[in-house]
Amino acid sequence: MIFDIHILGSGSAVPKLHRNPTSQYINVLERYILIDCAEGTQLQMQKYKVKPQRLQHIMISHLHGDHYLGLVGLLSSMHLNGRTKPINLYGPPALQKIVFDQLHYSKTTLAFDVHFTPLESKESELIFEDQCIEVYTIPLEHRVYCNGFLIREKDKPLRINKEVAMKMKVPVAWMHRIVKGEDWVKEDGSLIPNSDITLPPVPNRSYAYCSDTRYAESMLSIIQDATLLYHEATFLEDKLDRAKKTYHSTAKQAATIAAKANVSQLLLGHFSARYDTTEDFIKEATPIFSNVKAVEDGDKYSI
Amino acid sequence: MIFDIHILGSGSAVPKLHRNPTSQYINVLERYILIDCAEGTQLQMQKYKVKPQRLQHIMISHLHGDHYLGLVGLLSSMHLNGRTKPINLYGPPALQKIVFDQLHYSKTTLAFDVHFTPLESKESELIFEDQCIEVYTIPLEHRVYCNGFLIREKDKPLRINKEVAMKMKVPVAWMHRIVKGEDWVKEDGSLIPNSDITLPPVPNRSYAYCSDTRYAESMLSIIQDATLLYHEATFLEDKLDRAKKTYHSTAKQAATIAAKANVSQLLLGHFSARYDTTEDFIKEATPIFSNVKAVEDGDKYSI
Repeated sequence: MIFDIHILGSGSAVPKLHRNPTSQYINVLERYILIDCAEGTQLQMQKYKVKPQRLQHIMISHLHGDHYLGLVGLLSSMHLNGRTKPINLYGPPALQKIVFDQLHYSKTTLAFDVHFTPLESKESELIFEDQCIEVYTIPLEHRVYCNGFLIREKDKPLRINKEVAMKMKVPVAWMHRIVKGEDWVKEDGSLIPNSDITLPPVPNRSYAYCSDTRYAESMLSIIQDATLLYHEATFLEDKLDRAKKTYHSTAKQAATIAAKANVSQLLLGHFSARYDTTEDFIKEATPIFSNVKAVEDGDKYSI
Repeated sequence: MIFDIHILGSGSAVPKLHRNPTSQYINVLERYILIDCAEGTQLQMQKYKVKPQRLQHIMISHLHGDHYLGLVGLLSSMHLNGRTKPINLYGPPALQKIVFDQLHYSKTTLAFDVHFTPLESKESELIFEDQCIEVYTIPLEHRVYCNGFLIREKDKPLRINKEVAMKMKVPVAWMHRIVKGEDWVKEDGSLIPNSDITLPPVPNRSYAYCSDTRYAESMLSIIQDATLLYHEATFLEDKLDRAKKTYHSTAKQAATIAAKANVSQLLLGHFSARYDTTEDFIKEATPIFSNVKAVEDGDKYSI
């Protein structure tokens, strides 16, 4: 039951040799999703051995270059490498124009369809779902229109308590009704409450990606109880003024959001290029939220 | 008297970890010129320690992604790193729209001016000159409108033959007239021919960049006698059909151009990602033109 987050880039704005700007490759139950696609993302994929042709969805948070400038190159390379399978692209409306203008000028007709979903709502919306997962936008507060993304498993069925069920000799034919919540009505007409025979479902796992944003409690209701939260921490508290001015967050603010949202684990990223190490980010966040890591390019987190 | 070509990228189309798509950083007499700017070029500059803020000119050959997709990121980083000095940008007219549309959507106002020169002529034209150098376009034959660039030193003055001048006691006051070609008229009215006192000027050095193009003898008159020619060799002769179809050249064709143009040295580049080594390119070119090298990312050639 794979739910992996590969960090392809964890820096902000200006690329560095050891830290590329933002991109994440997510494998959730063999659904392959790219969140953001900075310049150089296709090379990061080669470096970290993840497969671009598997991608089914590309979700772009906002139109700052460090989150999307690698997209046209990635699509072109997919085309040159023989892709014919369609891909779903999500982002602000102008993204479609940016991509297709450039393909037009280069006289490139992609051999695969790009199904574009414009994101422009200021409310959270469901942008993808199938049998197993659903993806919601997380409206963020940034200098330009920006969304995070919440990827979660769908509600799972109740589990049969096998020990009890065997002892009580529950007929196999009843099982599919019991896992949906029905009580068991025995042949003699007596009723066994559902809760006597079942265990709660395996908890839904979820991943919330929140970058770029200033401190915004408006996201709390959407990311509440998430298993893993990635929250940008462009600055430390001593640059709080700069964070406010540029609509970014500090490590302390990210930790505060994690604590208030009651998430299980916090990842910090999108570090300003001015910082060479991340120790101080962890020091600043830990007193507020202790289960915290600072990501590096190439890291893989399994939920 | 620096005239250096730094190869920042020497591949075509799909980026590879060991070979980025096209970009070259040129220092000619402390004029700094970038030719083409593929995705990842700004990182290549960091890797090979050349300084983006020194650039005065960026020249884009054509609007295929592997020649310009790094441009918006490069300009943005220059801005974020505090550039205020203007820059000159040359390329097909749509380049201006591509760049400024993206800056507009990201709400970025560069803190420096970009002086854009649209290139659309099918004839070679002078696009830049100052006291010491001049730059001409080299119209190429590709699937989309495309120019190479010829960077050459301007004609230099005659040199005084010091030994002769001392022996003949040529007055210092006459020197600046003699280097311009005047004969020396002595005080007694007798005339010493200019050629008796001077040596020919130091030869002009020149660099011709020709990528992307199919075999095109139309460029010969422009690149004739160039000191150094960079000519694309996307394929080997066994892929001649593919070269023709995609408006690219083979190593043999590049060597043929070099021989016919009587250049001093040939550099091959823009290799298709299908080739892992360049030995066969050299083998194919050498019988036709022997002073040939296959470039690698990070190479520096001094003229």
